[in-house]
Amino acid sequence: MYAIVKKSPKPGAEITTLDTPRTREGEVVVKVKAASLCGTDVHIWNWNQWAQNRIKKFPMVFGHEVTGEIVEIDQNVTSLQEGDIISAETHIVDGTCYQCRTDRMHICQNLKILGVDTNGVFAEYFALPERNAWRNDPKLDPAIASVQEPLGNAVQAVLPKDNTEDIAGKDVAILGCGPIGLMAIAVLKELGAAKILATAGGFNEIRMELAEKMGADMVLNAREEGKNVVKIIRDLTDGKGVDVALEMSGAPAAVKQTFEIVTPGGRVSLLGLFERPVELDLNDALIFKGVTVYGITGRRMFQTWYQVKGLLANSRFKEKIGWIITHRLPMRDIAKGIDLIKSKKAGKVSLEPKW
Amino acid sequence: MYAIVKKSPKPGAEITTLDTPRTREGEVVVKVKAASLCGTDVHIWNWNQWAQNRIKKFPMVFGHEVTGEIVEIDQNVTSLQEGDIISAETHIVDGTCYQCRTDRMHICQNLKILGVDTNGVFAEYFALPERNAWRNDPKLDPAIASVQEPLGNAVQAVLPKDNTEDIAGKDVAILGCGPIGLMAIAVLKELGAAKILATAGGFNEIRMELAEKMGADMVLNAREEGKNVVKIIRDLTDGKGVDVALEMSGAPAAVKQTFEIVTPGGRVSLLGLFERPVELDLNDALIFKGVTVYGITGRRMFQTWYQVKGLLANSRFKEKIGWIITHRLPMRDIAKGIDLIKSKKAGKVSLEPKW
Amino acid sequence: MYAIVKKSPKPGAEITTLDTPRTREGEVVVKVKAASLCGTDVHIWNWNQWAQNRIKKFPMVFGHEVTGEIVEIDQNVTSLQEGDIISAETHIVDGTCYQCRTDRMHICQNLKILGVDTNGVFAEYFALPERNAWRNDPKLDPAIASVQEPLGNAVQAVLPKDNTEDIAGKDVAILGCGPIGLMAIAVLKELGAAKILATAGGFNEIRMELAEKMGADMVLNAREEGKNVVKIIRDLTDGKGVDVALEMSGAPAAVKQTFEIVTPGGRVSLLGLFERPVELDLNDALIFKGVTVYGITGRRMFQTWYQVKGLLANSRFKEKIGWIITHRLPMRDIAKGIDLIKSKKAGKVSLEPKW
Amino acid sequence: MYAIVKKSPKPGAEITTLDTPRTREGEVVVKVKAASLCGTDVHIWNWNQWAQNRIKKFPMVFGHEVTGEIVEIDQNVTSLQEGDIISAETHIVDGTCYQCRTDRMHICQNLKILGVDTNGVFAEYFALPERNAWRNDPKLDPAIASVQEPLGNAVQAVLPKDNTEDIAGKDVAILGCGPIGLMAIAVLKELGAAKILATAGGFNEIRMELAEKMGADMVLNAREEGKNVVKIIRDLTDGKGVDVALEMSGAPAAVKQTFEIVTPGGRVSLLGLFERPVELDLNDALIFKGVTVYGITGRRMFQTWYQVKGLLANSRFKEKIGWIITHRLPMRDIAKGIDLIKSKKAGKVSLEPKW
Repeated sequence: MYAIVKKSPKPGAEITTLDTPRTREGEVVVKVKAASLCGTDVHIWNWNQWAQNRIKKFPMVFGHEVTGEIVEIDQNVTSLQEGDIISAETHIVDGTCYQCRTDRMHICQNLKILGVDTNGVFAEYFALPERNAWRNDPKLDPAIASVQEPLGNAVQAVLPKDNTEDIAGKDVAILGCGPIGLMAIAVLKELGAAKILATAGGFNEIRMELAEKMGADMVLNAREEGKNVVKIIRDLTDGKGVDVALEMSGAPAAVKQTFEIVTPGGRVSLLGLFERPVELDLNDALIFKGVTVYGITGRRMFQTWYQVKGLLANSRFKEKIGWIITHRLPMRDIAKGIDLIKSKKAGKVSLEPKW
Repeated sequence: MYAIVKKSPKPGAEITTLDTPRTREGEVVVKVKAASLCGTDVHIWNWNQWAQNRIKKFPMVFGHEVTGEIVEIDQNVTSLQEGDIISAETHIVDGTCYQCRTDRMHICQNLKILGVDTNGVFAEYFALPERNAWRNDPKLDPAIASVQEPLGNAVQAVLPKDNTEDIAGKDVAILGCGPIGLMAIAVLKELGAAKILATAGGFNEIRMELAEKMGADMVLNAREEGKNVVKIIRDLTDGKGVDVALEMSGAPAAVKQTFEIVTPGGRVSLLGLFERPVELDLNDALIFKGVTVYGITGRRMFQTWYQVKGLLANSRFKEKIGWIITHRLPMRDIAKGIDLIKSKKAGKVSLEPKW
Repeated sequence: MYAIVKKSPKPGAEITTLDTPRTREGEVVVKVKAASLCGTDVHIWNWNQWAQNRIKKFPMVFGHEVTGEIVEIDQNVTSLQEGDIISAETHIVDGTCYQCRTDRMHICQNLKILGVDTNGVFAEYFALPERNAWRNDPKLDPAIASVQEPLGNAVQAVLPKDNTEDIAGKDVAILGCGPIGLMAIAVLKELGAAKILATAGGFNEIRMELAEKMGADMVLNAREEGKNVVKIIRDLTDGKGVDVALEMSGAPAAVKQTFEIVTPGGRVSLLGLFERPVELDLNDALIFKGVTVYGITGRRMFQTWYQVKGLLANSRFKEKIGWIITHRLPMRDIAKGIDLIKSKKAGKVSLEPKW
Repeated sequence: MYAIVKKSPKPGAEITTLDTPRTREGEVVVKVKAASLCGTDVHIWNWNQWAQNRIKKFPMVFGHEVTGEIVEIDQNVTSLQEGDIISAETHIVDGTCYQCRTDRMHICQNLKILGVDTNGVFAEYFALPERNAWRNDPKLDPAIASVQEPLGNAVQAVLPKDNTEDIAGKDVAILGCGPIGLMAIAVLKELGAAKILATAGGFNEIRMELAEKMGADMVLNAREEGKNVVKIIRDLTDGKGVDVALEMSGAPAAVKQTFEIVTPGGRVSLLGLFERPVELDLNDALIFKGVTVYGITGRRMFQTWYQVKGLLANSRFKEKIGWIITHRLPMRDIAKGIDLIKSKKAGKVSLEPKW
């Protein structure tokens, strides 16, 4: 089969042929119908420090956001059948550790990520454990179905636990308008947030426009406004600050603003990843204000998938998610897709199985 | 001043004059700009069994849903001033009991209800403790501002606690389409519920139409469908039942359906009041299914008021709440308003201070 | 192998020989080291209405509370090995339904119970799915290890969800002092409850004595005290009632008391099963008081097992659980054990693999 | 009256006479029966940077942990009477801001602290708003009653919200064994924590001994063990880390350890205050592990006071809290008490009204 393969530890990748995977115990083999590019794929393509530390075996196929059709099935698999249209939950877990047995398997002690620690989905076919297959409505656009995985991250950032304080009628800020930030805005709008206030890193008009279309009441250019961001958001929230602040950028300046704009007793979700340690005044940021902070990684399995399914049942919401997919390219043009993302000219880039 | 007064323990009431109330310690006196009729007012008018047991002192002024302007203020009041446009939280609490001191003052051990246990708002003026005044945006339509109180009940039914399981992407049923049931549908739609399935008692076309306009995906006539209700709702939810069921009718048949349609591990809010004890198979209804049940009365002070304010900031939602107010009558026509409600020809009836 | 077998649909059972079970896919075979009698076993022995409705295939082996040693292992089993000493989580689940995929597999839509819907543990050997095996510290007394399953029920009743209001410093009532009620008292004492007030059905001195030894501050004889129970408990809690009430008896009178003694805004767990529907005044019991009710069945998998393990690490607590096991009989004397329970002369009866 | 007074902005204080305070509106005047020294009092005595920034008006009386008898009462006070023995909740709040009206008045937007922003309790008499008086059992030792305030902080650190994950059967670490850390250990032991693992800054034998007496399973000398702390705690928790970690030291090294030893999905409470900003690797500390962090300040009003009351009802717990009070001195010997704390030779120092 064709696949986008990293043959050695260096930037880029090449399209080549590999043996089609066969099911091992408890697995299905899936024919790709749509995939999409994630920031992680760009890191692997660029071969940045994180990728060099993490990926050791070659050749490897990357990519993990995907929709496909099951074409082969191991005899031990009972809940799926050939022809099912599925998307992939990308956290491959052991199912037996303390975390897996206490309702948080998305942070399994022996976590593997599809397309990072195993062969991924930028290929004609890929293998997947039964547990990781999420059966879709076959009528759902495969491109939209493939972004349910990052959409689940957005839901996780908005509602990290069942016992999360609610969002309805509350003021919320989103710092960073990458695809997951944009999705979070759409989710917040759907959940009845009162004021939705976003900041974007600047030089990214497409994303600022999308943020407004997702439902943000205001989108601030963080680069232009600089330190005014805190004052503007406080003024827009009767001086009290926002009830919930979502840090989606990984920028040290933004994380500080996050804690400055949250109201005492409010909550913060940290999802953006940071290139290096961040210096924080914990007293003022967190302690004197009695703030709660949630670290966000992955998405609860499979609570968030049901939530995403329920939200996508609303045509208004589904349409918005479609808008975030600004480009649909053939798989063979992955380099072009990577460039679009790096030059900040895209929302989400979807790849079609055209080789 | 003019007031609608119950002079003795019998049905009806009369419009007469009373001394205008003056502030006692910690109180304000408010000039009525809009009031609205609640089912409780109909009970008091009808002088039903509950009213006979509860109300002992005459003459009494009833009515509690209200918007007005502060015209007099006790010297000990610090957070309000003359000219403020306020609505009334109707639960008058002691502020010192166990419940008041542990974040649930709406179920104070010494609870008094405005217009039930004290003189109410169907008058030109009424007195109110400082704590019970909620300051409105003066631009908000007084009729809509006066129904924030039952709207708070709807929010309380949907989100009984901060730690309530979320609604977004979940399937929800509402049994009973009185004004609070209708408001709950609008709230659920705003919060991103997936399927919103309502039942109405039948013979009430206005409310069934309103339920659809509020956002219900389906409105079943409970009288016509009878026992099919459970099957229909199960079929519409992939056989699993709804995640959340709100009992808003006070009908014994409906409470049984409520427990039949909720999915294992789901939750139920009981808000409708029952005329007599109800027989329940607790094993099947609750225990084997691991269901959580919340008794709903009043609304958390003042968490729900902030949530209502935030929701009303959305013009789409505010417009819907306006639709529920099907009639606006002068205060002197209260008898006509009572009749409209009893003959099921109204959503919510608003009263204007025209005497 | 020897087994206690119900050969036909009638009361009693007989000791006979059956083929030793062999592992099917994903299973282990376990050699019994200790088992214990549950109320369910008495129902099956007595062949009551519930048993007649539920059990249709014969011959069947019953019993489900157990400790044993793994002696055979299917090749697909990865997390266990021969020689492991395990206890059984008795809820056999499909792992793929909505409930299983949203952190509440103990109420799986396709739930089977070990020893009820499958062959059980009153035998020399039994087969068990990998997921249902809980690995014990091999030094733990097998009799105590076998009652971890009902102890998990007690934990589930005390802490039904992660987001349960806490117990520390709160007043709690337990209505019903069967083995799970007794265990709940011990758990509550361990969790720092302030006042622990128990009621027992009467004619059961052993259990009333055990309730005190578990840590109850007062044990009321429900039969003698009758309607005074409510007044006594109110007086002991400064008139406010208990913060948490656990209904463990299945007696209609007790469930009414449960709702009368709980403070407004408090919570109730219902675990006892009722022989017939119960009539409840929902207004006064639940709604006006804003009470939360949890239906309790089984125990969260495997959150409660970790909690039980952590509690048993405390020697004081482990000793108490040992006291509840009032009798240790050879398996062949099961009839005597059943009689002890029916005549209310036992706490928990443990069975040893002596044939 | 006699009082310990800071007359000017410099280190130390002097005993002198001041006018006895009289009640203003809504206040009571209290005669001191016992007070205790808090770290904040040492900062004020030492006149450190924080104190210089915060305290501007002189003369000022400091001290805030207290028990006393009400001797004068304003006419507007309704819930208290002369002769009541009370302790002081030290957070003086406005009662009307967003935080006060949404169940978190301990982080009021206009918070004042007794004995910091107002005249305090190291005097013969002090004035207190009605809301801040907590009525004690008159039989409770005044010295113990006066440390209910920091004990509430310990409860708040252990159970920051009603919806906190439970402690029973879980492993917990406490980093820092000052008085609140010690109290937290006693609380955790009372709540059924499985393993309680503490670290102390070293050079403080009294506190390490007290930590063991409070119920710690192990007390590590952080200075001696250095980087081994993380490994030791991981080894003692089956490699998984602790479920809950309480940072009570304010030491940058400890906060890093806190995040290293907490299990994925676990939670952290930050109570210790830091002298300067701390550098944190947010990715590894928080995000990849899906950790929840609670900033802890003050104590929920008055949820924690009820919890403390309930815990002190247990004589075993009350005795332990008594052990923490290692010294009882006359008020006139405050300088000696300050020295005992600075030289790390005391647990808690109680002051008696002897002048």
